[in-house]
Amino acid sequence: MNYLEYPKRLKATIEQLSREESYQSVCHRHYPDQPMPSSRVLGEIVDLLREIVFPGYYGDSPTRPASISYYIGVNVEKLYDLLRQQIYAGLCFDCHHTNREDLLQRKDRAAKITLDFIEKLPQIRHLLATDVEAAYVGDPAAQSSAEVIFCYPAIRAITNYRIAHELLQLKVPLIPRIISEMAHSETGIDIHPRASIGHHFTIDHGTGVVIGATCIIGNHVKIYQGVTLGAKSFPLDEDGNPIKGIDRHPIVEDNVIIYAQATILGRVTVGANSVIGGNVWLTTSVPPESKIIQEKYRHSGFVGGDGI
Amino acid sequence: MNYLEYPKRLKATIEQLSREESYQSVCHRHYPDQPMPSSRVLGEIVDLLREIVFPGYYGDSPTRPASISYYIGVNVEKLYDLLRQQIYAGLCFDCHHTNREDLLQRKDRAAKITLDFIEKLPQIRHLLATDVEAAYVGDPAAQSSAEVIFCYPAIRAITNYRIAHELLQLKVPLIPRIISEMAHSETGIDIHPRASIGHHFTIDHGTGVVIGATCIIGNHVKIYQGVTLGAKSFPLDEDGNPIKGIDRHPIVEDNVIIYAQATILGRVTVGANSVIGGNVWLTTSVPPESKIIQEKYRHSGFVGGDGI
Amino acid sequence: MNYLEYPKRLKATIEQLSREESYQSVCHRHYPDQPMPSSRVLGEIVDLLREIVFPGYYGDSPTRPASISYYIGVNVEKLYDLLRQQIYAGLCFDCHHTNREDLLQRKDRAAKITLDFIEKLPQIRHLLATDVEAAYVGDPAAQSSAEVIFCYPAIRAITNYRIAHELLQLKVPLIPRIISEMAHSETGIDIHPRASIGHHFTIDHGTGVVIGATCIIGNHVKIYQGVTLGAKSFPLDEDGNPIKGIDRHPIVEDNVIIYAQATILGRVTVGANSVIGGNVWLTTSVPPESKIIQEKYRHSGFVGGDGI
Amino acid sequence: MNYLEYPKRLKATIEQLSREESYQSVCHRHYPDQPMPSSRVLGEIVDLLREIVFPGYYGDSPTRPASISYYIGVNVEKLYDLLRQQIYAGLCFDCHHTNREDLLQRKDRAAKITLDFIEKLPQIRHLLATDVEAAYVGDPAAQSSAEVIFCYPAIRAITNYRIAHELLQLKVPLIPRIISEMAHSETGIDIHPRASIGHHFTIDHGTGVVIGATCIIGNHVKIYQGVTLGAKSFPLDEDGNPIKGIDRHPIVEDNVIIYAQATILGRVTVGANSVIGGNVWLTTSVPPESKIIQEKYRHSGFVGGDGI
Amino acid sequence: MNYLEYPKRLKATIEQLSREESYQSVCHRHYPDQPMPSSRVLGEIVDLLREIVFPGYYGDSPTRPASISYYIGVNVEKLYDLLRQQIYAGLCFDCHHTNREDLLQRKDRAAKITLDFIEKLPQIRHLLATDVEAAYVGDPAAQSSAEVIFCYPAIRAITNYRIAHELLQLKVPLIPRIISEMAHSETGIDIHPRASIGHHFTIDHGTGVVIGATCIIGNHVKIYQGVTLGAKSFPLDEDGNPIKGIDRHPIVEDNVIIYAQATILGRVTVGANSVIGGNVWLTTSVPPESKIIQEKYRHSGFVGGDGI
Amino acid sequence: MNYLEYPKRLKATIEQLSREESYQSVCHRHYPDQPMPSSRVLGEIVDLLREIVFPGYYGDSPTRPASISYYIGVNVEKLYDLLRQQIYAGLCFDCHHTNREDLLQRKDRAAKITLDFIEKLPQIRHLLATDVEAAYVGDPAAQSSAEVIFCYPAIRAITNYRIAHELLQLKVPLIPRIISEMAHSETGIDIHPRASIGHHFTIDHGTGVVIGATCIIGNHVKIYQGVTLGAKSFPLDEDGNPIKGIDRHPIVEDNVIIYAQATILGRVTVGANSVIGGNVWLTTSVPPESKIIQEKYRHSGFVGGDGI
Repeated sequence: MNYLEYPKRLKATIEQLSREESYQSVCHRHYPDQPMPSSRVLGEIVDLLREIVFPGYYGDSPTRPASISYYIGVNVEKLYDLLRQQIYAGLCFDCHHTNREDLLQRKDRAAKITLDFIEKLPQIRHLLATDVEAAYVGDPAAQSSAEVIFCYPAIRAITNYRIAHELLQLKVPLIPRIISEMAHSETGIDIHPRASIGHHFTIDHGTGVVIGATCIIGNHVKIYQGVTLGAKSFPLDEDGNPIKGIDRHPIVEDNVIIYAQATILGRVTVGANSVIGGNVWLTTSVPPESKIIQEKYRHSGFVGGDGI
Repeated sequence: MNYLEYPKRLKATIEQLSREESYQSVCHRHYPDQPMPSSRVLGEIVDLLREIVFPGYYGDSPTRPASISYYIGVNVEKLYDLLRQQIYAGLCFDCHHTNREDLLQRKDRAAKITLDFIEKLPQIRHLLATDVEAAYVGDPAAQSSAEVIFCYPAIRAITNYRIAHELLQLKVPLIPRIISEMAHSETGIDIHPRASIGHHFTIDHGTGVVIGATCIIGNHVKIYQGVTLGAKSFPLDEDGNPIKGIDRHPIVEDNVIIYAQATILGRVTVGANSVIGGNVWLTTSVPPESKIIQEKYRHSGFVGGDGI
Repeated sequence: MNYLEYPKRLKATIEQLSREESYQSVCHRHYPDQPMPSSRVLGEIVDLLREIVFPGYYGDSPTRPASISYYIGVNVEKLYDLLRQQIYAGLCFDCHHTNREDLLQRKDRAAKITLDFIEKLPQIRHLLATDVEAAYVGDPAAQSSAEVIFCYPAIRAITNYRIAHELLQLKVPLIPRIISEMAHSETGIDIHPRASIGHHFTIDHGTGVVIGATCIIGNHVKIYQGVTLGAKSFPLDEDGNPIKGIDRHPIVEDNVIIYAQATILGRVTVGANSVIGGNVWLTTSVPPESKIIQEKYRHSGFVGGDGI
Repeated sequence: MNYLEYPKRLKATIEQLSREESYQSVCHRHYPDQPMPSSRVLGEIVDLLREIVFPGYYGDSPTRPASISYYIGVNVEKLYDLLRQQIYAGLCFDCHHTNREDLLQRKDRAAKITLDFIEKLPQIRHLLATDVEAAYVGDPAAQSSAEVIFCYPAIRAITNYRIAHELLQLKVPLIPRIISEMAHSETGIDIHPRASIGHHFTIDHGTGVVIGATCIIGNHVKIYQGVTLGAKSFPLDEDGNPIKGIDRHPIVEDNVIIYAQATILGRVTVGANSVIGGNVWLTTSVPPESKIIQEKYRHSGFVGGDGI
Repeated sequence: MNYLEYPKRLKATIEQLSREESYQSVCHRHYPDQPMPSSRVLGEIVDLLREIVFPGYYGDSPTRPASISYYIGVNVEKLYDLLRQQIYAGLCFDCHHTNREDLLQRKDRAAKITLDFIEKLPQIRHLLATDVEAAYVGDPAAQSSAEVIFCYPAIRAITNYRIAHELLQLKVPLIPRIISEMAHSETGIDIHPRASIGHHFTIDHGTGVVIGATCIIGNHVKIYQGVTLGAKSFPLDEDGNPIKGIDRHPIVEDNVIIYAQATILGRVTVGANSVIGGNVWLTTSVPPESKIIQEKYRHSGFVGGDGI
Repeated sequence: MNYLEYPKRLKATIEQLSREESYQSVCHRHYPDQPMPSSRVLGEIVDLLREIVFPGYYGDSPTRPASISYYIGVNVEKLYDLLRQQIYAGLCFDCHHTNREDLLQRKDRAAKITLDFIEKLPQIRHLLATDVEAAYVGDPAAQSSAEVIFCYPAIRAITNYRIAHELLQLKVPLIPRIISEMAHSETGIDIHPRASIGHHFTIDHGTGVVIGATCIIGNHVKIYQGVTLGAKSFPLDEDGNPIKGIDRHPIVEDNVIIYAQATILGRVTVGANSVIGGNVWLTTSVPPESKIIQEKYRHSGFVGGDGI
């Protein structure tokens, strides 16, 4: 191939990729001065929140009683500034033909929501303290609750969930989802911010856990890696599209334990104090105190070195 | 222990680790001027590709129609330079006794492959647009296709797969595998670049999904987290080693849905329009329109607080 | 809302979050000069260790025989300095009322442990070489053992495990756990550093694998993604808390293969040369040479577009 | 000293530093949403401008004729966004009691000024090309004009000056000064952005050069390191403060050369084609074609090893 | 040249550079656990100090009266930790054969000095406020004292000087010198930390200013770029080495102005209210109210295009 | 102004800036695979060289005799790789119409030069040790030679000079100039790499020093800040351009001291053991043992507050 061909072929592809019919369905148009949500800044926000909620574990804040308020003061103020902008970006994400007045109103709303959210932080910290306690008490391998806070991926995932859930309650679009996907990528635990989860919640190991948007989970619930609390089917509208917003995920009552890889689908109820064994496929409700396990395995004749 | 002992003991270990018999089986020798693939640069390449394919979502490119071609132009040119070097590094990875002429030929081949790959980008973008559409239509929790592109890990994993697949078609060694492992680490979704996957493909949640090298997946297929499309057994050669390159993974026909944690192994066919329930172990073919679920669970007597 | 309200409300929340009763159960107090473990530094340590064990794959060390000892020398010395401090931080993590003499003793112990650990590196490298060999031989998709070292997440996870295991043997607190969680986050593979694992160990794909603290795994064992080797129940003490330190995870003998998503719980033994099929729930021992698979699936009548 | 004293003494100092009477005269109050100029961003802006003006020298833009417009397009668009914000920050710097309407007007003005400035770039490039030519022709040590652009600090300083001067013409406060101080710190050359300087201007070596705010410099002027074109005295107002804005620096006509360390002060004129020798102290006008040097040195009796 | 020669020749040079006789006079031996001063950390320290002294100008601290104490609190605490370590490193810099007890004593001393220094900050801020005022009042080009703080290199240099001077008073070795060299590199202004300088001190432009170790400068002094207040000769000891610690630099009394490039050497006194013209060489004392300028220049016959 | 005007006006300016007649005289064309010199990499190279020459001062290399060779080994190997590429880039800088064969020859030449340069390092270290000694002995303010190496800008500038000089001797284009400009920017000391400078050379304070390309400086010479050793006039060729390569800078013989701001121009000789006073303008030779000072100042009647 002739070297002179290169620029020509590159140029041709660039032109093709720049045609509106090529990019129009996968392109996000944002207007000047209309901020985009930023994963990097949301990462900073989550770090700040972890630092505020669990003083002395993250960041470089020492925890002398004499100085803790300086650090919390600075972190809360930084949080206020960064989060306000991201919420504003979230509020603008799908506003394609806005005028200035409208943008200013969204900006004000973002400030108000941010403040409302910050006022929830003491309560979020309180809830997370129960989750830490549950993880520590329930895991014979845990040496201390400090180790739980410092190392356990479940605490990171549940922290992000509790933050994202509160933001969603305050009607922030998009941002809660990004925050929960950040925890999903970090821990393999995927909790939809719309799910409702009680106190003393714990997840062991956690990789592959999925908790759907309309789940309701009681207090003192423990689930293991690979557990799905999902939807079984979506009622379709007259155009054949799934109807949005219908309750379609399980209700898990207080004190339930669900073992690894169990899949529970649909608006079914797992009664209080039940134990669901691993790898079970469950699409019906079970009463309180149930103990469910998979049908017993069978023996089989295999062939081949690595085969089954 | 005497402090003077430290340098002596460190030195002894360093010498032991520097002996050829210690490192020879785990050491990669690369010659001067022979480039190594770089995860960091491949990360930049994937970012550039995401930015090119989905303008306005990643990076800082605004998407005024007037300026989009500048951004695509710069990104495609940067891509050409970075990817050419990585492909060259891939082509050199296992060439241990090369001469200069041979290296130059590989360099030329890398340039040619890079250009061929770039010319596929409009088509890759088109395919990914169908995947985005499928994810949006099929998920009642999705607010917009913008949210799908911005947040859904499946889109990231499928993007990396479609890139890596195209590179493998162009006979690039190693690099496609690294690109798919990057998505695997980020999303928990492990799609072998050699697999063949139709349009409107979607994965929900996705953590733990495995799609093997010789899989053939039709159009409009949807799979959930934890699904394995794997190999059941590997025919061995006369030395007892698995024979490489044999078709050993499932064929999944159009419009199939596979629920969470199902494991489908071997060169079996899942017929069109089938639905495979969660946690199923399937090692035989099923005809079109099949609806398969796990044998019903049983009740069991448990003991202990946290036991099963 | 009045703009003057903002500072007032922020201030009030800051004060609430700074009250001892709010933070006391989730706060880590560390004293001046008492170092905190650092994830960032532990990340550097793992990178150094990978670079030392697998020369030429990570970092920028070329592998001319003439110069390899310089690189190993520098990396081992850096490792000594960084690891010593992190082990010291680990030894101090829960020492809340120490005096200076006590801190100095911990510092000396940290130095001694670090040196003992470094002297194990040749042996760790030797074991990892067997794991690489097993992965290469057992995977028809692997092109070379170089590809295995460079790309396979299992090698990263097993490397971190073998490092963390050795540190735990040397009675280092906390640090081994952080190192294994780093691999967990990166690969989805969660191996407790206390588990005992033989040579030629391999994990395919790996996302969702969990190997518990008291597991004993023989030689030439291969497991697939989503496999759990976990605890079934925890004996409780008289206060209703799980008793810590009891053997509660499976024993897997030599040459066993366990397929995707199988869940094996409790102190059961999987006899040598057995094959456990995917998605099996196994809570009893099986003799050598067993071939276990899930009960056959059943057909079911589904409704709905996306339903099951 | 007792260890308990530390927190107490730190706290006391913190309180003292936080008292309004301590900080009021050295504190900058900026209101929420009122941006501060950022040295870091202004650094990026200068880099972008250098990259736009001198394609192929800075940044990573290749200069194939086919692709240069992509790079200039992207860089100009980035410049527009970044500079607009910094100019806005400059316009807000001293507005302590603004309302929203006022801020929006400043924002619009910033956008307008930025665009006006960008339209001057072709002319700025043209002027700088004459400066490069003058430096190359006038320096026997210069190998090529490429070397001049790539290495000569004077080109960096004059580039910043020509940018800052244009911004000042457009009535941007503060930002021009920061841009000229950036060059001052990098090169030791301190040109006030208000000075007026003709084409083909060149400075050799440059460290210590000072060119005051009301200087007027003709075409084809060359000055050496350490030259000061400064003010001799400042007329005072009735309160004894210097009156601002009066012409108080020299006029240097065409084709003048001024050698190292010469100090020329006051509103004097150095006539065309003059040469001013080094280390001269000049506070009066000199006619065209003047050749001025310092009074001849004298011999002196010194004592001591290192003495004079 | 044969390619095999390269490793051999590199190895030979490495061995030569590693011989003790080659490196002994230019090598710094530091013992394990003996910290080295770090330019990077000292840079952070200077940034913190600037942020504490001038709230709202540096860093990201807003300056709402309600929150300023949080920021000062956090910055002072960070300063305490970082500076303590650097002072400790300074105290250890030349201690080649120390024992542990000795190191601990230096560590305690470092903590004590750091605290003493921090208690001087209110006073340092007060002095710097006078310097800012002097620069603003004395420069017709200055728009506001905010511009002076934000842009003027002299303020940066004098800030570093006042910090370094205080540390030297507290007998910290090495660190003050590094801090003043940092300002020297940034601004071209070289003030020895041992010099004594009164309030309302200002330097205009500043590049090339040198103020020697034993200078005594009164109040309300203003000096211009290139001014040297240096030593004329050093009395030698009997071995011919300069005697250290002798007063050898000028005394400049109150209200003196010294113009650009003046060189004043030796223990001479410039009397109060004097004005020293530029480029003057002065090695004798002058009485109060003196007005000194260089001998008048002369005219000269030049030849050549660029010549003098 | 209408908002729709913005994109239009930006686009027009971009087009203007992208026209060949606009950029042609200030644009550097570099061909694909033709490397550009990189200031960032040259910065790393200088850091490596400082670390190799002065072990224990820069970087993180400890200096236990047992381990120093590892660090020097790694640093020299890194230097070989980085410097080879930069020299190659330098050799290609002005080769606009090269073919591949030509590029390969330049690459080989770069490797050979790099190796030749590295073999000079022991000698460069030896020379720099004499410079350190001279600075320590000659400065009453210096506490130790360690302080000199760690803090004195002159050592940094002279180190860069000695490196750049050696590279120029080996006929490397451009790179030596960039290295000396890096020191110029950092220290204000501008030594042309072509100058020839003997051992025990020292510069005090240094800001503003200029040493021209054809200077010859003997041993044991000391110069102060602001000293220029420059060219007086450039003979012109018949086209009126300065003739390049002619000896045009001073010769300074052994044991000379030159005080601050002295300007010595032209191919004159300052005889051995001479002392040149500050602010002198010297354009003729002076014999050995000369003591030269500026003509005595005069008194003058000034007016105005800040005037002269």
